[in-house]
Amino acid sequence: MKCTVCRETASVEIRRHNSGFCKTHFLEYFENQVRKAIHDYRMFQPDERILVAVSGGKDSLALWDVLLRLGYRADGLYIGLGIDEYSDSSAAKTRRAPCSACGLGKRYTFNRIAAEGGYDVICTGHNMDDEAAALFGNVMHWQTDYLARQSPLMEAESSGLVRKAKPLYRLSERETAAYCVLRGIDYQVEECPMALGNKTNQYKELLNQLELQSPGTKHHLLFGFLERAQPFFRAGDPTPLRPCERCGEPTSGEVCSFCRMIERAGLAKTQGLDIPLAAVEADR
Amino acid sequence: MKCTVCRETASVEIRRHNSGFCKTHFLEYFENQVRKAIHDYRMFQPDERILVAVSGGKDSLALWDVLLRLGYRADGLYIGLGIDEYSDSSAAKTRRAPCSACGLGKRYTFNRIAAEGGYDVICTGHNMDDEAAALFGNVMHWQTDYLARQSPLMEAESSGLVRKAKPLYRLSERETAAYCVLRGIDYQVEECPMALGNKTNQYKELLNQLELQSPGTKHHLLFGFLERAQPFFRAGDPTPLRPCERCGEPTSGEVCSFCRMIERAGLAKTQGLDIPLAAVEADR
Repeated sequence: MKCTVCRETASVEIRRHNSGFCKTHFLEYFENQVRKAIHDYRMFQPDERILVAVSGGKDSLALWDVLLRLGYRADGLYIGLGIDEYSDSSAAKTRRAPCSACGLGKRYTFNRIAAEGGYDVICTGHNMDDEAAALFGNVMHWQTDYLARQSPLMEAESSGLVRKAKPLYRLSERETAAYCVLRGIDYQVEECPMALGNKTNQYKELLNQLELQSPGTKHHLLFGFLERAQPFFRAGDPTPLRPCERCGEPTSGEVCSFCRMIERAGLAKTQGLDIPLAAVEADR
Repeated sequence: MKCTVCRETASVEIRRHNSGFCKTHFLEYFENQVRKAIHDYRMFQPDERILVAVSGGKDSLALWDVLLRLGYRADGLYIGLGIDEYSDSSAAKTRRAPCSACGLGKRYTFNRIAAEGGYDVICTGHNMDDEAAALFGNVMHWQTDYLARQSPLMEAESSGLVRKAKPLYRLSERETAAYCVLRGIDYQVEECPMALGNKTNQYKELLNQLELQSPGTKHHLLFGFLERAQPFFRAGDPTPLRPCERCGEPTSGEVCSFCRMIERAGLAKTQGLDIPLAAVEADR
């Protein structure tokens, strides 16, 4: 296949756009998709401080790299969650799947650190495949509250939630991997061993089957939802947030999910907060 | 496995309900599910006249049989669509897939005949698998107008649409097949050859994969939608119907989909109506 822009030999084919790109024009395409995401959702301004949630995988490293290249003030933060006593105990004692507990802990901790560090926005490396799979799961169970909220941008809330953005939501998993390879970024290739066979990965496989039969399936599922269906759910879901009675972080209930999880795991004597913060390492 | 009711050997296992039934109690379960569907959606009253859309397959024959056993005034009508010049031409000349053209023609014709024959309601044999697959397709493309309307009951409209009901929507494909076998109903086992590999069948296969991993997936998808998600779409979709300029049947546009299809197929000199009615055979 030839590059859609310059007719040189293409390195990366993108079937859903019926396009292919050489190295130079793929990197340009990638940056343009990130620019478009930031622009369309007004994710952040050039002078704002960005905290990138870094896992060490292709998505978060590609995101951090591209934001810096686009001139943004982006710091990366890695949280050592998922390997120490905390998450072993969570996995053993809570009634949640480990992925759910891990995600909850990370979201909670990132929000807390971003707020305390004066960051304007948290950026995560969620790509199109992640977003389509999450959407698929929310649809299969018709979790209408999640459907009302799932978005490339979640605005800050006065209750204490820092603004969150997903600048890679227009790019597929294959494309973020290609970006890292072409940029020489050395990323952790293996999936988290705890995540093998989880629901999200099952949904990703199903969507990949559909994508093979009809290129663009994931794109249409996600973008059709954001453009046409989500407004219906948003119109009907005005759940207000308020401070958690235990830790003061925002929640829709009396006690936030994080404190409830910590309580179930039997880890918190006074406040759940001490545990995750002990596992945080600021990288940069 | 033992029958959940009488502990005899079970003939039919129903994993999503974690149940099994002997012949007697399966037939009782089947009738109860149909009763519950009719009751919950107030589909029709004992004195109303029902026109059953009969294809010769397991679903429509099971439906006709069970409605008569429950004491309803149900006539079956078979339309010889799908084998003659009309649908050959449709398949060759329209831009729709043949299944879509066939369904459109049948819906149109049944409505016309039911209205002229003074029937109160049209019943179709759509089962849970059909409804879940249609829902899945509507979600993958976020067809919000279809999502607002897809229902086990569609009320009559003053514009001329006869009430339509799907009394088998609580029962799976396997269960309607089992009903026919246990009742000795000789049905057309082969799928329509035109439908092989169509989208709906692809979606059914995917849902069957998910169902194997998590029994109840289809049930939760469909019932969760009807109970929790559809109200959002209904609230935002008040498209009124009015008479088609060509044939007078109800439509949301100026010319109805059926007349537009007939026009594209180059079959209608004056009114599309003449064609399908020629292919109708009243069975009973």
